[in-house]
Amino acid sequence: MSLIGRKGVVVRHIPRADTPLIDALSEFGVATVHEAQGRKGLLDPAIRPIQQDRGIAGSAVTVLVAPGDNWMFHVAVEQCQPGDILVVAPTSPCQDGYFGDLLATSLQARGVRGLVADLGVRDTRTLREMGFAVWSRAVYAQGTVKETLGSVNVPLVCGGELVMPGDVVVADDDGVVVVRHAEAAAVVAASRQRADAEEGKRARMAAGELGLDIYQMRPRLAEKGLRYVNSLDELEE
Amino acid sequence: MSLIGRKGVVVRHIPRADTPLIDALSEFGVATVHEAQGRKGLLDPAIRPIQQDRGIAGSAVTVLVAPGDNWMFHVAVEQCQPGDILVVAPTSPCQDGYFGDLLATSLQARGVRGLVADLGVRDTRTLREMGFAVWSRAVYAQGTVKETLGSVNVPLVCGGELVMPGDVVVADDDGVVVVRHAEAAAVVAASRQRADAEEGKRARMAAGELGLDIYQMRPRLAEKGLRYVNSLDELEE
Amino acid sequence: MSLIGRKGVVVRHIPRADTPLIDALSEFGVATVHEAQGRKGLLDPAIRPIQQDRGIAGSAVTVLVAPGDNWMFHVAVEQCQPGDILVVAPTSPCQDGYFGDLLATSLQARGVRGLVADLGVRDTRTLREMGFAVWSRAVYAQGTVKETLGSVNVPLVCGGELVMPGDVVVADDDGVVVVRHAEAAAVVAASRQRADAEEGKRARMAAGELGLDIYQMRPRLAEKGLRYVNSLDELEE
Amino acid sequence: MSLIGRKGVVVRHIPRADTPLIDALSEFGVATVHEAQGRKGLLDPAIRPIQQDRGIAGSAVTVLVAPGDNWMFHVAVEQCQPGDILVVAPTSPCQDGYFGDLLATSLQARGVRGLVADLGVRDTRTLREMGFAVWSRAVYAQGTVKETLGSVNVPLVCGGELVMPGDVVVADDDGVVVVRHAEAAAVVAASRQRADAEEGKRARMAAGELGLDIYQMRPRLAEKGLRYVNSLDELEE
Amino acid sequence: MSLIGRKGVVVRHIPRADTPLIDALSEFGVATVHEAQGRKGLLDPAIRPIQQDRGIAGSAVTVLVAPGDNWMFHVAVEQCQPGDILVVAPTSPCQDGYFGDLLATSLQARGVRGLVADLGVRDTRTLREMGFAVWSRAVYAQGTVKETLGSVNVPLVCGGELVMPGDVVVADDDGVVVVRHAEAAAVVAASRQRADAEEGKRARMAAGELGLDIYQMRPRLAEKGLRYVNSLDELEE
Amino acid sequence: MSLIGRKGVVVRHIPRADTPLIDALSEFGVATVHEAQGRKGLLDPAIRPIQQDRGIAGSAVTVLVAPGDNWMFHVAVEQCQPGDILVVAPTSPCQDGYFGDLLATSLQARGVRGLVADLGVRDTRTLREMGFAVWSRAVYAQGTVKETLGSVNVPLVCGGELVMPGDVVVADDDGVVVVRHAEAAAVVAASRQRADAEEGKRARMAAGELGLDIYQMRPRLAEKGLRYVNSLDELEE
Repeated sequence: MSLIGRKGVVVRHIPRADTPLIDALSEFGVATVHEAQGRKGLLDPAIRPIQQDRGIAGSAVTVLVAPGDNWMFHVAVEQCQPGDILVVAPTSPCQDGYFGDLLATSLQARGVRGLVADLGVRDTRTLREMGFAVWSRAVYAQGTVKETLGSVNVPLVCGGELVMPGDVVVADDDGVVVVRHAEAAAVVAASRQRADAEEGKRARMAAGELGLDIYQMRPRLAEKGLRYVNSLDELEE
Repeated sequence: MSLIGRKGVVVRHIPRADTPLIDALSEFGVATVHEAQGRKGLLDPAIRPIQQDRGIAGSAVTVLVAPGDNWMFHVAVEQCQPGDILVVAPTSPCQDGYFGDLLATSLQARGVRGLVADLGVRDTRTLREMGFAVWSRAVYAQGTVKETLGSVNVPLVCGGELVMPGDVVVADDDGVVVVRHAEAAAVVAASRQRADAEEGKRARMAAGELGLDIYQMRPRLAEKGLRYVNSLDELEE
Repeated sequence: MSLIGRKGVVVRHIPRADTPLIDALSEFGVATVHEAQGRKGLLDPAIRPIQQDRGIAGSAVTVLVAPGDNWMFHVAVEQCQPGDILVVAPTSPCQDGYFGDLLATSLQARGVRGLVADLGVRDTRTLREMGFAVWSRAVYAQGTVKETLGSVNVPLVCGGELVMPGDVVVADDDGVVVVRHAEAAAVVAASRQRADAEEGKRARMAAGELGLDIYQMRPRLAEKGLRYVNSLDELEE
Repeated sequence: MSLIGRKGVVVRHIPRADTPLIDALSEFGVATVHEAQGRKGLLDPAIRPIQQDRGIAGSAVTVLVAPGDNWMFHVAVEQCQPGDILVVAPTSPCQDGYFGDLLATSLQARGVRGLVADLGVRDTRTLREMGFAVWSRAVYAQGTVKETLGSVNVPLVCGGELVMPGDVVVADDDGVVVVRHAEAAAVVAASRQRADAEEGKRARMAAGELGLDIYQMRPRLAEKGLRYVNSLDELEE
Repeated sequence: MSLIGRKGVVVRHIPRADTPLIDALSEFGVATVHEAQGRKGLLDPAIRPIQQDRGIAGSAVTVLVAPGDNWMFHVAVEQCQPGDILVVAPTSPCQDGYFGDLLATSLQARGVRGLVADLGVRDTRTLREMGFAVWSRAVYAQGTVKETLGSVNVPLVCGGELVMPGDVVVADDDGVVVVRHAEAAAVVAASRQRADAEEGKRARMAAGELGLDIYQMRPRLAEKGLRYVNSLDELEE
Repeated sequence: MSLIGRKGVVVRHIPRADTPLIDALSEFGVATVHEAQGRKGLLDPAIRPIQQDRGIAGSAVTVLVAPGDNWMFHVAVEQCQPGDILVVAPTSPCQDGYFGDLLATSLQARGVRGLVADLGVRDTRTLREMGFAVWSRAVYAQGTVKETLGSVNVPLVCGGELVMPGDVVVADDDGVVVVRHAEAAAVVAASRQRADAEEGKRARMAAGELGLDIYQMRPRLAEKGLRYVNSLDELEE
C-alpha cells in the first residue's frame, strides 16, 4: 500500500485483462458494471466526458503528475500498448490544461483508446474530431511546465477512487468505473446476469406492468407504514 | 403548509391543469413564462438538461426521497397519468443515480413526459435514445437502495422552489420553471401578451433600431448621471 | 488604473486591432494564442460556451453591470461595430439571465460576433439557432431590472482577467483568452511560429515517434532521478 | 401557495408563537428540534453562524429582497417586535453584503434577536461585539442599492426551506431549523421527550455500554448479513 | 497594461502611500473603505482570514507564482519594507500550502504586516500564535516546489481584483479591499465623512428611530407601489 | 486491493503503531509529517476541524457507511481501543449529520481520541465542550437512518486518500494526514530531522537572514533568467 502515490518511478510491466473481457465490459457500460461488482469503483461525477454518446474500456496505465506539470505524460506514452487507457491524477488538485491534441496524436499512434484525467484538458474540438475519447475534470487551456517528476504505473487515487495499473477502466456518458484486473472475468459474468435480468423487466415495464408488482414491493411498503390518501385535504384534517 | 416534506404518504388525486394550457406554456418556454408570472418560480440553475434543444411541460407528480434511496420512484409511477412530469427532491442533498432507463421505460409506458430531479441520474445515453427528457443536478451511476419511505404528491422544495402536486412544470434548455395550477390560465395569457410584444421589438431590433430608443431609456439614463466621453484619456485628466 | 470598474461612464472611441489580425487569432484558437503570448490572458474555465465546435475572435466592447441589472447592455449596443465582441462583468458575482434573444438580435444587426459574460444568459436554444455565439458562467432564465448605472468601455476584470476596451478576445471550445490590442500583431506572429512547429511534431508523433525523443527529455529525466523498474513487486522489496 | 415570493407587499400582522415555547425550542437546539419534528425544516448547511457557541430562537419576520438591493431591510425593521428573528432570502442567488452594524443597531433597538439570511453580511466583528447573532451564506463587504421592491412577511424559500411569517426559527452552531407556528407546542413536547430519552442513553454510554446493546442492534445486523472476521487476510483467502 | 502577469521580473522600487494614510484606512476597515471609494476594490469573498477580530492595512508587495511553486515568496521577502503586505496570486487556480511559519518568520523580521493570498497556507496555529495576520483561499498543508519563475511587484489579479504594487491593501474580518496608491488620501477623507455620517445615524437608530424616516424612504417606496396589508388572508382574496 | 470498499464486513483485529510513535507524530503536526514522508497522505482540504488550535494523532479504525445511514458507527465503537481515531467515509458523497454527542460519549468512554469524517456532524458546540476532537466535511443537523450495512476496518478512500485500518492519522488546524502503519517509525525519524533543520533556519530568518541566501537560491534564479529592474516604467520601454 505504501506504493500509492510513490514519486519518481516508472513501472514497465503491468498486468492487463484479456481483450474480450475488456470489450465485454465496454458493452455493458458504466452503470451495469458498477452494479454488477457490488456498487463500487465509481469515480467522482465531476469527471465528465468531452464527447457525447461514446463508451470505451481499456487497461489503466496510471500517471501521477505534479500540479501544473505534464512532464510525465510523455514518459507514460512509451509504456502504453494498444487497448490501454491513460488514467491521470495530480498530487494536489489542479485544473490546468495538461493534455491536448499533440499528446493525443502520440497516444493514438500507439493504439491507446482514451484518457481519464482528474485535471484539465484543451484542444477539445480537435480531440473530438480525432475521435480520441476523453473524460476530465475541466476544460482549460492553461499551459503546464516540465520540471517535476511524478510516476507511471504506480497505484493512485483518481477521482476519489483507487486505481491500480492494469485495472480495467470503463467510461461512458454516465462517468467512469474501475474494475480490478483480477475481478474482470467475474464482473463480466455478473454484468451479463444483470443485463439479462433487466431485459426481462424492461419488456414487462414497457408493457405497462409496474415495478411495484414486478418486484413485489407492496407488502414491504405497507409494513413500513406507507399510507395512501385520496387528497392533501385528507391529511390536513 | 405543515404538509411540506411530510413522509410516508401517497396522495392519489391531484389537480391537473388543462392540456391546452400546459401545451401553450411549453410553447412559450421557460424564460417567457418566468417573466410573465412576475419573475418567480425558477428552479436552481444547477438543475440542467441531459439533452439539448428540447422543451416540455406537464403536471407535477411530486416525489420525496431519502438520500441514496429510490424506492418511492416505483410508488410514484402508479400515480402518473399521460402528460405528467415527475418532480423529485431528496430530503437532504444527494447526487446518487436514482433514475435510469428501466424507470424511464415504466414512466414512458404511462405517457409521462419527463423527469425533473434535484439529484443524479444514469443511463443518460439510453435516455436520450428513448426520447425521455430529463433535467437533473448530476449524472452519476451510483446505485441506490430501497429501505426508507418518502412520499408521493406532497408539496416539496425542489431546486430551491416550492412545487405543489399538480403545478405545471415547464422545462427547456434554459432550466425549469413551476407555475401554480390555479394560475396556469392567467400565465398563458400573460405569456402570450409578452411574446407578442417581444415579436414587435425583435423586428425593430433586427432592423437596427436600438433598445435605447425603443424603450426610451435615454432620458432616465441621463437623469441617473450617465456620462459619455470620447476616450479613456478624457477620464484620467 | 483607477479607471478599472469606474461606474456611470460610456467611452465612445476605443482602439480596435486590424481585422486580418483578429481573424488570424481566431484561426489559431485559444490554446495556441495563450501559449504564444507567454501563457497569460485566460479567463476562468467556469466561463463556458453554450454551443459546440465554434470559435470566434473580435474587439472587446466592455460592459460593467450591477448585480441583477442588465440596463447597460442596451447602452453598449450603440457603441458596437461589426466584428466586436461584448465582454461583460458584474460588479459582484451574479448568475442571473441578463441576456437573451432580443439583445442578441440587436447586436447581430450591428455585426457583433458574440458575447463573453461572467454571468447568466437565457434563450440559449434560440441563440444557437440564430448562430449568435455565447460564452457565459451560467444558463439561467432569471430576469433582471434596469435601475442602476454601470459603464461601457472601461477596463474591467472578467473571469479573473483584466480586459481593456479594444483588446482582442478569442473564444472557442477551450474557453476565452484576451490579447492586448497593442500586442495583437506580435501574438499572431508568435502563434504562427508555434503552430508551424507543432505541425512538424504532430507528423512525427503520428508516425509513432515519442515526445521523449523529439524533445530529448531522457537525459534530464535521468538527472532528476527517474527510476525505471520492471514491476511493482520490485519496488516493494 | 401563490403568495410565495409575492413582491411589493408588506404584511403587518403575523401570528407569533408564545414566548415560553420559543424559549424552550431555543434550549433544545437545532438537532433535537429537527429530529423531534420528524427530520424536517433544516436550512441549507451553507448558511453558517458568524459567531460561535450561541443559540437563539424567535418568530420569523420574513424579508424578500432583489439581488444586490437591501431596501426591504429598512421596511422590515418597522414590522419587528421583541423576540423576532429576521429571515431574509434574495429572489436570485446573491452574496452581497446586505446587512451591517447600522441595521443591526436598528433591529437591536426593537428587541430583535438575530438574523438568518441566505446572502452576505458585513461588519461582522462589530456584530459580534454588539452581541447581535447572525447566520448567513457569506461574509462579504460588497455594498447594495435601494431601487427594487421586495416584500416583508410573505412566505418564502430561504436556504432551500419554506419559511412562513411567524414560524419559529431556531439557530445555533449546527445551523438553522424552522418550526411551523401551529406546531410549536407539539414540537416542544416531542423535543422534551427526545431529550429525556437521550439523557438516559448518554449516561449508559458514558458508563461504557454499547449502542449495539442499548438499541438491540445485533440481531438485525446479523439478519442483514453482517460478517465478523478476525483480519483482512481472512477476507482475501 | 501589458505588464499584468508578466513573468520572470522583480521590480525593486514601488510607490508607497504615507503611513498615516495607511493606518487611517486600517482604522476605518474594509466595509467603510469599500463604500467610500465608490464600491470598488473588493477581493473575492472566498479569501478569508485565518484569525478572528483583527484588521490591518499596508502597501502591497505583489507576488505572482506558478501553481504548486512557492519560489517567488523568497524572492519577494527581500523587496519588503516595514508596513508592507504580501499580495500573492497563482498563474492558475491552486490551493496548495505555499506559505507557513518559516516564511512568516522571515517576513515578520522585515516588519511585514501580513499576507493576502489567493492560494493555500499552512502552520495556521503557529501563524496565529506569532500574530502574523493571513487572509487566504484555503488552509492546506500540501507542499510546493521551487522550479518555475514568477514575478515580484508586477500588477496582477488577486481574488478577481487588479492589484498594483504599492496599492494600499486593507483587510479585516469582512475580507480584503484594495485602494489605489494615488487615491489613498481621497479615500481616507471620504471614509472619514462616511464614518461621521454613520455615527449620527447609529445614535438615532439606537434610540429607536427608523431608517425609513431617517432616510425619508416612505414616499419613494409608495411611488414604486409598495402595498401594506393587514394579513396574508387579505392578499389571497 | 479488492478489499477496498468491501461492504458488510467487520474486521476485529488491526495493526496499531506504538503509542510513542503516534504521540511523536502528533507533536510534529500535519505539515511536518506530510513533508517528512515525501509529500503524500494529505486528505482533501475541505475536511476541516470544528475546534481551533488542537492537534491529535491515533490509529485509524475505518468505517464505511451508506449515504444518510449511520448504522455502522455503532458497530465501529465496539472495535475501538484507547488511542484510536474513527475515520469514516460514505459510499457516495453525503453531508448529513451522521455523528453527534451521543456517539461521542460512547467513543470517549472507550478512550477514542477523535473523529475524521468525510461527511457531516452535529451537536458541534457540545462536542467542543466535551473536548472530543472532530474533523468533518460539513456541519449539518440532518438526521440519518439505520438500514444499510457498510463495513468496519476495511481499506477505504476518505477525503481522496486511501486509509488502511491501523494507519496513523494525524490531524490539526492544517487538516489531516495519514501515515502507513509500517512507516510510522521512519516518518517519526524523518519528521524529527526536518523539524531540527527548520529550527535552525527559523532562528536565522528571525535574525533577518534571507531564504535567498540561506538556501543559496540566487544563482539558480539567475540561471532561469530572473530579471531585476528598478521600476515598472523600465519594463514598459
